[in-house]
Amino acid sequence: MDIPANRLEDIRAIMALFEEPGSLAGGGVTRLGYGPVEDEMHRLFRDWGERNDLIAYTDAVGNSYLENDAASLAADNGKACVLIGSHLDSVVSGGRFDGVAGVAAGMACLKWLKESGLNIPLRVAAFRCEESASFGRSTVGSGLVTGAVDGDDIAAFQNPEGRSLAEVFDEAGYDLHPQRIEGIEAYFELHIEQGKVLENLGKEVGIVEAIAGPRRFRIVIDGQADHSGATPMDMRSDALCAAAELILAIEKIGQSERRFQGVATVGIIKNSPNVMNVIPGWTELGVDTRGISAASLDRMEERLRISAENIARERGVEISMVRQYEDLPRAMAPQLMDQLEQAARSLGVSSHRMMSGAGHDALGFAEIVPTAMLFIPCRGGISHNAAEFTTAESITTGALMLYEALTRRYTEE
Amino acid sequence: MDIPANRLEDIRAIMALFEEPGSLAGGGVTRLGYGPVEDEMHRLFRDWGERNDLIAYTDAVGNSYLENDAASLAADNGKACVLIGSHLDSVVSGGRFDGVAGVAAGMACLKWLKESGLNIPLRVAAFRCEESASFGRSTVGSGLVTGAVDGDDIAAFQNPEGRSLAEVFDEAGYDLHPQRIEGIEAYFELHIEQGKVLENLGKEVGIVEAIAGPRRFRIVIDGQADHSGATPMDMRSDALCAAAELILAIEKIGQSERRFQGVATVGIIKNSPNVMNVIPGWTELGVDTRGISAASLDRMEERLRISAENIARERGVEISMVRQYEDLPRAMAPQLMDQLEQAARSLGVSSHRMMSGAGHDALGFAEIVPTAMLFIPCRGGISHNAAEFTTAESITTGALMLYEALTRRYTEE
Repeated sequence: MDIPANRLEDIRAIMALFEEPGSLAGGGVTRLGYGPVEDEMHRLFRDWGERNDLIAYTDAVGNSYLENDAASLAADNGKACVLIGSHLDSVVSGGRFDGVAGVAAGMACLKWLKESGLNIPLRVAAFRCEESASFGRSTVGSGLVTGAVDGDDIAAFQNPEGRSLAEVFDEAGYDLHPQRIEGIEAYFELHIEQGKVLENLGKEVGIVEAIAGPRRFRIVIDGQADHSGATPMDMRSDALCAAAELILAIEKIGQSERRFQGVATVGIIKNSPNVMNVIPGWTELGVDTRGISAASLDRMEERLRISAENIARERGVEISMVRQYEDLPRAMAPQLMDQLEQAARSLGVSSHRMMSGAGHDALGFAEIVPTAMLFIPCRGGISHNAAEFTTAESITTGALMLYEALTRRYTEE
Repeated sequence: MDIPANRLEDIRAIMALFEEPGSLAGGGVTRLGYGPVEDEMHRLFRDWGERNDLIAYTDAVGNSYLENDAASLAADNGKACVLIGSHLDSVVSGGRFDGVAGVAAGMACLKWLKESGLNIPLRVAAFRCEESASFGRSTVGSGLVTGAVDGDDIAAFQNPEGRSLAEVFDEAGYDLHPQRIEGIEAYFELHIEQGKVLENLGKEVGIVEAIAGPRRFRIVIDGQADHSGATPMDMRSDALCAAAELILAIEKIGQSERRFQGVATVGIIKNSPNVMNVIPGWTELGVDTRGISAASLDRMEERLRISAENIARERGVEISMVRQYEDLPRAMAPQLMDQLEQAARSLGVSSHRMMSGAGHDALGFAEIVPTAMLFIPCRGGISHNAAEFTTAESITTGALMLYEALTRRYTEE
């Protein structure tokens, strides 16, 4: 699409607000959830709102909100508004766009509504601690207020400084058991794709059909550590060779679910004793499978189990497999997807329906209100890294899509 | 064979001498080369010699020797003697038999010669720092006096405390450039097998035909780190999957050299970033190949190179391969092997001709004098571990073999 210069300028100005906090010499940022740099990001967000005559406030877990008068009025009358949200924290040495782009798009929509004089109720949220980098749990702020995350389950989780979430909440006056968020009739989130599908296809935006459910496994292979020089090939139980077979089987399992958008990855390998002259006796794998349907995830898990059993039997090693973590896939609301698609058509934006492999704040909202997500491309698919990059044009295109969907939504009703 | 009770008693008494130094709560020992515990082991060795009216001395690099009057007389007359040697140091949390069994067998031979009144010249050596655990270089003491190791090459090598070998030598008054050892006409070494071939075959001793030459490689695979959820299977350059293919190829390469006693092992794997939600972008392998002929080692290296190239091309990753370390295979002296075989026959000991996959102090001697090695079984092939074990009976059998070979050698001449 052709982007109006003033809209692009607005996005540039808003993104520039968040430039400084947590900046690293290497170009990236570190803004850990519930840490002082994230606090500063939230202050900048609320200050901008107050400067722009918006209502700014914080909820019981530290999430920040801006809303316009229409939203406030709607709330007073027991009516609901649209919520656009994302987060302002980052991983260690992360990028400047993961989360921030989505919050900025929401802020721009508030500004554009005000300038247009349209009386459409909109709230914009900056959620706390979306990244697991701080406390080992993702989507803490949005999860607590949507009920997707139980405060008791995470109270003892610690940040890299060894402080528990309960301690940090106590000190800040936050509440691990907040009231559920109310007054929302739809949730939209714009986010960088964190993959390279849009870039590869040359599409301007992605309309998310579902957020994939991760199912993660820890697999431990017990072989026999022997001297690498003194043990003939036919007297070995090499744990790493068994692991290698399993890694390739897992790759095939992911490929077999390709048409269901499934993926399977061995991200972690640990090997013992991991020295040159000893045949590995013990190897551990961390396996991440993701799928947009429980059936697909079940098929992958079953194939993984069979592969592990076969390899264990054929190689005379022991393989144990534990499901460490699981989250269900979440479908996005068809009606909101259609609205985004109509917005794309009306603006002349090229779009692609796709899954989100990563989790987002939208996860919790998908449980309680109609929810949609919009992806914008990021260069090379790189994220969680100083090299993460998307253009102001892409953020503006996404923000204009949200604005178009929002105005059509209220105009058509 | 039937072991005479007094011979067994001698071995038990000698092994008991070395029980204490460096003992760990878990049952093993830590006796790092050129450390205080190894010093103590050498003191015990020399003290025993002096108590038994043997000549005890230390050379310019700290190796300790005991010899009988016949050996001393031979040296005075410009004649040579037989040397039986091994080492008294260990790896971290190592076993009580690796090295010590061979020194003890030599000591028993000295005792038995004296008791028998046979006038056969014998010297027994305890070499320093055979294990690479201390300074990252194996066979330091025997290597320096045989010329197999150049002092300049290892002067800067550091122990786990960060002290260089040059510093340690300075402080102890040792010399990194000693005179070459002289007056030796044959070298014998008894050692635990550190493999399970003898145990599996039910043989009492192994007669080593050759010490395998290791050839070691560092292989680095450069793929592309991407989000494990957001990157479809067909858009990946997964370094770990490429590594898995290579690990299995290396296993096959080892198997293909089985009839030449070749082995190939991936002992080390490092993976980056090695977290659950990122496709590995970088993986490193440490590969150890061993063979008893240069042709076999060459074939393995060539196949490894071709496998790496094919996998790199097919998967769109970069694979670089560097030969990190190489030592030539060393054949043992056929005449000494025959003498050991005759000794086995005459004593009724079951023997098996085999290669040594591990390096030993014998490596340096094989370059300068006729050299032979005798293996005794160790339980489960386990070594470099607190669970390392061999019986006093096995050590005695081996010592009696050496004694028989020695007396036949001088009786027949």
